[in-house]
Amino acid sequence: MSVILQKFPASRLNSRQELISCYQRIRNTSAAICAPLSLGDYQIQSIAETSPPKWHLAHVTWFFETFLLEDFLPNYRPFNPDYSYLFNSYYQTFGGMHPRAKRGLLSRPTVEQVYHYRTEMDKRMLDLLSGIDESQWQKFAFLVTLGLHHEQQHQELLYMDIKHNLWSNPLRPAYLDRPRQLIEISSELQWEQRQGGLVTIGFDADTFAFDNERPRHKVWLEPHRLSSRLVTNAEYQHFIEDGGYERPELWLSDGWCHIRNHQWTSPLYWEKHEDQWHEFTLYGLEALNPAAPVAHVSYYEADAFAHWAGKRLPLEAELERKLLEMPLKGHFSDSGVFHPQAGEGQFYGSLWEWTASPYLAYPGFKPWHGGVGEYNGKFMCNQWILRGGSCITPLDHIRPTYRNFFYPHDRWQFAGIRLAEDL
Amino acid sequence: MSVILQKFPASRLNSRQELISCYQRIRNTSAAICAPLSLGDYQIQSIAETSPPKWHLAHVTWFFETFLLEDFLPNYRPFNPDYSYLFNSYYQTFGGMHPRAKRGLLSRPTVEQVYHYRTEMDKRMLDLLSGIDESQWQKFAFLVTLGLHHEQQHQELLYMDIKHNLWSNPLRPAYLDRPRQLIEISSELQWEQRQGGLVTIGFDADTFAFDNERPRHKVWLEPHRLSSRLVTNAEYQHFIEDGGYERPELWLSDGWCHIRNHQWTSPLYWEKHEDQWHEFTLYGLEALNPAAPVAHVSYYEADAFAHWAGKRLPLEAELERKLLEMPLKGHFSDSGVFHPQAGEGQFYGSLWEWTASPYLAYPGFKPWHGGVGEYNGKFMCNQWILRGGSCITPLDHIRPTYRNFFYPHDRWQFAGIRLAEDL
Amino acid sequence: MSVILQKFPASRLNSRQELISCYQRIRNTSAAICAPLSLGDYQIQSIAETSPPKWHLAHVTWFFETFLLEDFLPNYRPFNPDYSYLFNSYYQTFGGMHPRAKRGLLSRPTVEQVYHYRTEMDKRMLDLLSGIDESQWQKFAFLVTLGLHHEQQHQELLYMDIKHNLWSNPLRPAYLDRPRQLIEISSELQWEQRQGGLVTIGFDADTFAFDNERPRHKVWLEPHRLSSRLVTNAEYQHFIEDGGYERPELWLSDGWCHIRNHQWTSPLYWEKHEDQWHEFTLYGLEALNPAAPVAHVSYYEADAFAHWAGKRLPLEAELERKLLEMPLKGHFSDSGVFHPQAGEGQFYGSLWEWTASPYLAYPGFKPWHGGVGEYNGKFMCNQWILRGGSCITPLDHIRPTYRNFFYPHDRWQFAGIRLAEDL
Amino acid sequence: MSVILQKFPASRLNSRQELISCYQRIRNTSAAICAPLSLGDYQIQSIAETSPPKWHLAHVTWFFETFLLEDFLPNYRPFNPDYSYLFNSYYQTFGGMHPRAKRGLLSRPTVEQVYHYRTEMDKRMLDLLSGIDESQWQKFAFLVTLGLHHEQQHQELLYMDIKHNLWSNPLRPAYLDRPRQLIEISSELQWEQRQGGLVTIGFDADTFAFDNERPRHKVWLEPHRLSSRLVTNAEYQHFIEDGGYERPELWLSDGWCHIRNHQWTSPLYWEKHEDQWHEFTLYGLEALNPAAPVAHVSYYEADAFAHWAGKRLPLEAELERKLLEMPLKGHFSDSGVFHPQAGEGQFYGSLWEWTASPYLAYPGFKPWHGGVGEYNGKFMCNQWILRGGSCITPLDHIRPTYRNFFYPHDRWQFAGIRLAEDL
Repeated sequence: MSVILQKFPASRLNSRQELISCYQRIRNTSAAICAPLSLGDYQIQSIAETSPPKWHLAHVTWFFETFLLEDFLPNYRPFNPDYSYLFNSYYQTFGGMHPRAKRGLLSRPTVEQVYHYRTEMDKRMLDLLSGIDESQWQKFAFLVTLGLHHEQQHQELLYMDIKHNLWSNPLRPAYLDRPRQLIEISSELQWEQRQGGLVTIGFDADTFAFDNERPRHKVWLEPHRLSSRLVTNAEYQHFIEDGGYERPELWLSDGWCHIRNHQWTSPLYWEKHEDQWHEFTLYGLEALNPAAPVAHVSYYEADAFAHWAGKRLPLEAELERKLLEMPLKGHFSDSGVFHPQAGEGQFYGSLWEWTASPYLAYPGFKPWHGGVGEYNGKFMCNQWILRGGSCITPLDHIRPTYRNFFYPHDRWQFAGIRLAEDL
Repeated sequence: MSVILQKFPASRLNSRQELISCYQRIRNTSAAICAPLSLGDYQIQSIAETSPPKWHLAHVTWFFETFLLEDFLPNYRPFNPDYSYLFNSYYQTFGGMHPRAKRGLLSRPTVEQVYHYRTEMDKRMLDLLSGIDESQWQKFAFLVTLGLHHEQQHQELLYMDIKHNLWSNPLRPAYLDRPRQLIEISSELQWEQRQGGLVTIGFDADTFAFDNERPRHKVWLEPHRLSSRLVTNAEYQHFIEDGGYERPELWLSDGWCHIRNHQWTSPLYWEKHEDQWHEFTLYGLEALNPAAPVAHVSYYEADAFAHWAGKRLPLEAELERKLLEMPLKGHFSDSGVFHPQAGEGQFYGSLWEWTASPYLAYPGFKPWHGGVGEYNGKFMCNQWILRGGSCITPLDHIRPTYRNFFYPHDRWQFAGIRLAEDL
Repeated sequence: MSVILQKFPASRLNSRQELISCYQRIRNTSAAICAPLSLGDYQIQSIAETSPPKWHLAHVTWFFETFLLEDFLPNYRPFNPDYSYLFNSYYQTFGGMHPRAKRGLLSRPTVEQVYHYRTEMDKRMLDLLSGIDESQWQKFAFLVTLGLHHEQQHQELLYMDIKHNLWSNPLRPAYLDRPRQLIEISSELQWEQRQGGLVTIGFDADTFAFDNERPRHKVWLEPHRLSSRLVTNAEYQHFIEDGGYERPELWLSDGWCHIRNHQWTSPLYWEKHEDQWHEFTLYGLEALNPAAPVAHVSYYEADAFAHWAGKRLPLEAELERKLLEMPLKGHFSDSGVFHPQAGEGQFYGSLWEWTASPYLAYPGFKPWHGGVGEYNGKFMCNQWILRGGSCITPLDHIRPTYRNFFYPHDRWQFAGIRLAEDL
Repeated sequence: MSVILQKFPASRLNSRQELISCYQRIRNTSAAICAPLSLGDYQIQSIAETSPPKWHLAHVTWFFETFLLEDFLPNYRPFNPDYSYLFNSYYQTFGGMHPRAKRGLLSRPTVEQVYHYRTEMDKRMLDLLSGIDESQWQKFAFLVTLGLHHEQQHQELLYMDIKHNLWSNPLRPAYLDRPRQLIEISSELQWEQRQGGLVTIGFDADTFAFDNERPRHKVWLEPHRLSSRLVTNAEYQHFIEDGGYERPELWLSDGWCHIRNHQWTSPLYWEKHEDQWHEFTLYGLEALNPAAPVAHVSYYEADAFAHWAGKRLPLEAELERKLLEMPLKGHFSDSGVFHPQAGEGQFYGSLWEWTASPYLAYPGFKPWHGGVGEYNGKFMCNQWILRGGSCITPLDHIRPTYRNFFYPHDRWQFAGIRLAEDL
């Protein structure tokens, strides 16, 4: 496997010791996320899109075993030859895999056995991190870094999937029951006027980024305005009350079809009880906070809302240019509050922001070589870009150039709406 | 709720003490069946027809709470008001219920909580069993007896569902790994000639039986022959090798359609590895024993096999008349061997035998009054009768008049084939 | 092909001339039924269960070509070698066939070509009818008779399918617009008490009957009552207004499931306009006639209605015994009125009556030999018996022993409800 | 309804007389396309995506009635008030509509009635074209022009749908059986190097174009190469023989999923008979011409082929810039040959060319006002751009800026593959 990244990340990962410490911290975080779960919670899969937490824990470990241990340890013998079939997600390079929609049926290996698998692989990984020859370091360190970012992506999926899995239970059990501060005042919506012109976007440094963020390239932008914060629950409620889900003229044709077929009349996780909207959160069912940003909307809903408001969604290049100007801080998972808060700005963290840009290859895009080449490129069809991270994204996982992507009907991710308009 | 059974079972349940001891024994058996399970095994549901073992344990307990505690304890307050929604199976009388196909998503209550529920309900039930007034005893004892038979039916379902759930895992984990004796010689197939005439079938004693076994009534039978044992794996393999699954003329029209749509080419749980048929059992994957009876066939397959053999399946009245002549003994779950064995007779136990009789009301059938009236009657459409019990049926659960029933495409139950022919 | 019918129908078909005249009359009737159709009407297929009229016309012709011309004419060359694939309905004996649900896509051969096919085959059939050697006559005449009954069954299907096809058009076009007399007074419902005992049913004469009506055999019946006429629209409306479609306790479990999934709240073809029930008929949309029998109900609805009324549906043996006592007359298609009328009796004609008996083989049943063996036997699973014929059945097609059968959810056939009760 | 097009097309439609003559010619063409059809062919709809030819003929007429007659004739009374429901395609503005997938069930109105509808509407339209007041001319003429382009789009759909409908018949009937010249030599594949830079695309003249071609705007392009002709059948056959449909690494993830679920192993209309590939054409089933361009491939297949060839598909801006440089001529429907031919160039006509560009709004896009605003904008999700027209596109319908769009799995349109590559 030859890696196209010639220079290894200089910034945070410039020493073995740093990478080892990073490895330990990120691996521990995955287990910490699962600490509040019952053993049954580890097992379940509410829809094909979600995975059982146990499966996530095993899959990210399989990633290290497959892309690192198998390649860098001579005569490596797999921990368990069946695990590649069970815990491969979508890498056709490595042969068959258990059907995605049936991950919830794998009651074996047990949770205990999966943790044992993690412990054993961590031992081997830490040995390798300390002992690998300097000549292999650059490629090795790149793949470790990729594995850690991969695990961080699955940490976000863990929050998303746990939320959906628990919500599928009529008891609506809370993931966490600790109290959290609630901000109930939203900031006023303002519009920033922004210049167009020939700009560059995409990643170009010698630190880590996904292949889909490269190459850096030119894009022509028209002048436009961006709103100063995300759309709030109160604003979205106006849309609903104004017949938003009943008026076909507001919707993309596929969107209208989808909401009719699935009988959607509000965002995911909204429930009306005694005439009051509630929202299922990782803290259980709560009265809807009007000032907080509306979350768990699909692209179809985001687009219809923008249409209703007489605006549009921003382009990914418009958002990237804005993100590049700002300090990388916001309400990320490091805050320990796993639900979006009222506030202003909200460009980083809070909620992923749907863009009006489909997920496409940048001009000259080349996927990584080898098995990791399946990481991003093959999904460049039918999905849309989201930007900026969310309250369940780790801060050290994100970049201004980071491209997240989902199908236009997906809404179990922590996604919200920012508005833009042409001048 | 008024119960039509006027006289209470005199036989085994003629005293409180006997019923109490029965209650304790049967309730303990359910837990014992689940002892070999991992916590993940308790949670999973491989297809809509199976249920998670945890759900079975809770549902049978809910049955006692609903039909006994709620009715016989004044001002009874439910253990948990949500449990009726979660653990009601199909009793419309008691309002809404969790969708059957989504029982596997209920990660809460936890296994521990379900066992706690069982313990608490058992306490209350035992108090009531000791303390209930004599004036209520007859009706009460009937419902307790029904609840225990109900739990025994779910014990059989536990074995069936655990088998299917584990088989859905590509690891094909065994439920039990203890060794068992294997009988490899089948007895010769013989034919018993049996008289026809006007016979009576159905239950008429004052002991317990299901409403669907009543009333006792007359049926006209033609003279016929019954085979001396069940069809073996070897015989069924001949059918397959003779193109059994390729020849539409052998099949019912709906059966042919079903096996084509589902690409069936052998019984459930059969797998060919290196040209040798294997069978998944509760003891894991094993080489097929040619002498053992073929198991896990649908009605469609049983009928096609009979057609191929130039025979037919027996009528339920033909089998009931035969069962009435025989001592009630055979290979039941009490033997501790949960897979059918080679042998002769096999009328009782071993495998449920498909009959050529649809599941219908006997002339003059009246369902029980009240909520328990939904127990049997509403299923009298589209299903077929099976008789005789199986190796996972408790001996004290069965009777000669016992009517089991499944859809013609079902085959996860322990079902086999007995042949009959006209004279 | 050897036919089990040893003696040929003595009654109406005892001479060549009679059979020839019968052939001409029945073949002409099929064309006459289609006379009111537009060329588009010939082509369409609203659901998989219906067929385009053009296809019916070709299929019944293919039946004569395949079972008569191919077998009795030496070196017969098919009219068109593709027609066997296109117009075979379900005879696996003759190889592949066009998928049932896609018959509506066969725009070629054209209607004109199909009529040409009919003309050509009729010529050859009439030649053969005149010229065939006496030694072959018995077998030949049996198959011609079968072919004519087969065509009469498709005549009934033509009415059913045309009705459904036209109803699928929001214009609700009428098949016929000629006026007809409307009877608006229903007779009073009375109950006839009938003896039980050991009775015989089934066909035993040497005239034509289907294989499934044989052999004549004994059945034990309990004493019972039969109602004097079919359930009326007014009575069925009471059932609806009493919450019939909202009360699960009235329904078979599969029936409840079906009406919920398909959102059924009334019989097929009922539509409410401005608070008045209307019914689509072959004469177009009409105000519901309260005195006429309720038509186009499924078995599930018939059973639920009976349950609601505190009665049950009759057994097929109970109805056959009754039919045997009565003169074979009633409102059949020969009347030229293709919608049921108010009245009394209604045992023959008017509407097929759902029985509480599944479609099963009589004891000792043997299907015909050869390809015609697929005619009836392979459907003996999952369907229910209807008796007595309907207003779209030809009088000379029916017998007291005639067994019609449909799936419990089917309701595009002209089916109604007669009630029975135990004594 | 206010139309954003301020200036009316000056070029070809600068007089009433020209527009009248255009109207007559284009309306007549639709009927001419249907001339070879049987009456059954007019009726059928093989899949939800296709429509019966009869429906197309009525729908395009409804378009003129709705957008012209209803708006420009005072107190206009619809020809038939039901037709709006029956023949509205997707304009929510005008209320309900018959479900798309069930258009094939509308046997009424008949073909004759639909032609009568056309004749009547043409009379009224021609009156209006002559008589409408000059003050309304500009808006009126725009909408007539739109209606004519709309009808031309449906002419292309007629060819596509007739082809698919006929192919659904196992007889594989030909639409036309007249002979045509066959070119069997393909030109050599060459690569043209093309400059990048800041270019403009989109429509900006005062003649007719669709709203989605506007506004003219800037796009940054990288230098690239375009191939000199379309991919041939021979080349595509190499792809198949090289395991193209078996190798997941060549496919987009959704594409791989789609070809597995639908068991695609070749382009639509390819069939292998006796080891020789054949292709169903409007002239019937023919041996595959290796030199002709491969047709009826989906975006998924086009992308996988490009991937296999080490190339990529062109961007829509790259193609538009090329088309702008070339004379607008090629193999269009005016040639009377309705199947692509071997040759070189093939930029205009022959086959629509898949681009690597999703169908998106141009920056500053505004849909037309009123009902016609639903024409294009609401489909800007999940579809991909195709450029250049095909052998069934009328020459006077197309422009260099013309944007056609289909779902990535669609392949019943006449679509082929042009390759591009980065420098």
